[in-house]
Amino acid sequence: MIYLDSTATSKPREEVIDTFQKVATSYWYNPSSMYTTSVLTKNLIDQATNNIMIELGLTNKKIIYTSGATEANNMAIMGICKPYINQHKTIITTEIEHPSVYQTFKELEKEGFNVVYLKCPNGSVDLNELQKNLTKDTILVSIMWVNNIIGSINDIKTIIQMVKSLSHAKLHVDIVQGLAKIKPDFNFNDIDLMSATFHKLGGLKGVGMLIVNNNLQLCPSFYGGHQQDNLRPGTMDAAAIVANAKALRIAIKKSEDNYQTVKKLYEYLINNLKKLPFIIINQNGAFHSPYIISLSFTKIKGETVMHYLEKDQIYVGIGSACNEKVETLERSIMAITLDKTRALNMIRISLSADNTLDEMDILIEKLKRIGNR
Amino acid sequence: MIYLDSTATSKPREEVIDTFQKVATSYWYNPSSMYTTSVLTKNLIDQATNNIMIELGLTNKKIIYTSGATEANNMAIMGICKPYINQHKTIITTEIEHPSVYQTFKELEKEGFNVVYLKCPNGSVDLNELQKNLTKDTILVSIMWVNNIIGSINDIKTIIQMVKSLSHAKLHVDIVQGLAKIKPDFNFNDIDLMSATFHKLGGLKGVGMLIVNNNLQLCPSFYGGHQQDNLRPGTMDAAAIVANAKALRIAIKKSEDNYQTVKKLYEYLINNLKKLPFIIINQNGAFHSPYIISLSFTKIKGETVMHYLEKDQIYVGIGSACNEKVETLERSIMAITLDKTRALNMIRISLSADNTLDEMDILIEKLKRIGNR
Repeated sequence: MIYLDSTATSKPREEVIDTFQKVATSYWYNPSSMYTTSVLTKNLIDQATNNIMIELGLTNKKIIYTSGATEANNMAIMGICKPYINQHKTIITTEIEHPSVYQTFKELEKEGFNVVYLKCPNGSVDLNELQKNLTKDTILVSIMWVNNIIGSINDIKTIIQMVKSLSHAKLHVDIVQGLAKIKPDFNFNDIDLMSATFHKLGGLKGVGMLIVNNNLQLCPSFYGGHQQDNLRPGTMDAAAIVANAKALRIAIKKSEDNYQTVKKLYEYLINNLKKLPFIIINQNGAFHSPYIISLSFTKIKGETVMHYLEKDQIYVGIGSACNEKVETLERSIMAITLDKTRALNMIRISLSADNTLDEMDILIEKLKRIGNR
Repeated sequence: MIYLDSTATSKPREEVIDTFQKVATSYWYNPSSMYTTSVLTKNLIDQATNNIMIELGLTNKKIIYTSGATEANNMAIMGICKPYINQHKTIITTEIEHPSVYQTFKELEKEGFNVVYLKCPNGSVDLNELQKNLTKDTILVSIMWVNNIIGSINDIKTIIQMVKSLSHAKLHVDIVQGLAKIKPDFNFNDIDLMSATFHKLGGLKGVGMLIVNNNLQLCPSFYGGHQQDNLRPGTMDAAAIVANAKALRIAIKKSEDNYQTVKKLYEYLINNLKKLPFIIINQNGAFHSPYIISLSFTKIKGETVMHYLEKDQIYVGIGSACNEKVETLERSIMAITLDKTRALNMIRISLSADNTLDEMDILIEKLKRIGNR
């Protein structure tokens, strides 16, 4: 098997599953109860949280565990916007956000918000357009760090400065595809809200997190018990949280080495793909994650290519895994390429440090065979 | 250790953790992707769902997996009510619901709903009051099956008939404390929405479910990808779902035997507790779950009793685990006893089939010693 879809999800590390098993076996108590075993369970969660804070250098933030990045994105956006329903405030996002951001903004359009969808002509956000739309009425800006479809990297450093100097808006950044993969040239502490998940970097599904300013008041997404500062009620899952904090620690520790490994694979692959006349590589921007390559066949649908490849146990994506069953991937690729054929004919190759140059050779051969059919 | 808090959570079964490990190791693929390994992963989820449907005899329902019962309760209530904001519709619940139902209704009060909180004078809902409040303007009735604080059982069979004959309201039932413990005298298919979770019956935390009529249109709780009929976006956690379906199957298979075992423990314990002059047992109703005993010391705070007991590694609850850190347990016990001291001095003993008569003897001795101090 050649797995080239780690943007959608990744294999959980053996030691992460082991940790899950250990905690689920010995510290399965309800972390909200007040007797010793529960307190010990809660302490494990607090330790995991503390470790994540240290790994990411967070000094002014708290972590709210969610069921994943989708919930974290919703919680961030709705949590800021709910009090302003029907007040015609401006909220800003981009045309190429993950559906869990984009669709939430679409929903808020119905609730009387003035929603600006920034264009991303070369895959990353048009900063002039951002500047133009930042006013005293702007309450939220949500811009992803690394795009999940084509891998473009936004200039978060400049975005932070711009949002801070031109508005009182809160800045939310979906950091899912950058975390523990790309070295940030900005400080996480300068962002008000960040959504992340663990299952894309060797962790388990079912737990994500919203990292949020200590002093920021959010409207809760749901109601119930007093867990997690009243923001996210429900019994906390110590086993998954502790295991995932471990996954993140390992991923961060390996991130520099992994980046170099993946960059070599990426360059080798890109150089070879560029030689193929029936393939267009969907990236123009200077800033790009080597973990993600989006390419379009000139004459074959992405879905067809994917199925050809899977016959040889090569697994690639055809857009956000959350949306593969419908053709909404067009939104991101269309926004960038303005070319429907390119959008429909797109496949996404996600690289990881577990991939090899040999695998790249096999992939290139298969793609050649498909293109020359 | 004598664990008497299985109402809060239970030890996950070894074979359930094993299943989790196996699926997380071999079927970690994104169930929304379209290549073989992902389709196989999705098939495992579908199989698990199908098994749950069969176990519960569900014929007209679909299952939406959530992060737990708190999210399921919120999703059910908000999913029905959101389209009716500020239309002064009537929604009915009880004074003794779990916080994730009660607080959601409190929130809807602010959104212009006419909220009726039914009294539960003997621990279960006043059916006359329910009847009185069911009108053509009632859109939702949410009543729990088994109360999580004192173990009273509501007459769901009559409630179903009443709601159906007197209104067009949807009926939501929080079945968390009854599922796989109490044999229902009603048909699950006759209820529009049911919330459940697995970690209270030998399963893992992090996954619950909303069981909902096939043809019922719900407003989604959050926005994003198209997973789970657009109702609950986010990457699905095959490992936890498959493992938890197994936990439920085992729990249901053992439920009759477990009930008999627990009933014996319950009767033995109740008979002995009744002899203690410094203890009041908080139950008057005829219908009662043997899994839950709520008692109040006449002169000692529940929290103090709990800490005395934990010195001997006996773990009991002092209310909904979701709320132990604040004194909101008063709400349920106050609603039933109208006695603040009884509410404050309450402990909850949850029994399971893993408990023994010897453990009951030890508990009784300790309680005597505490009461006679």
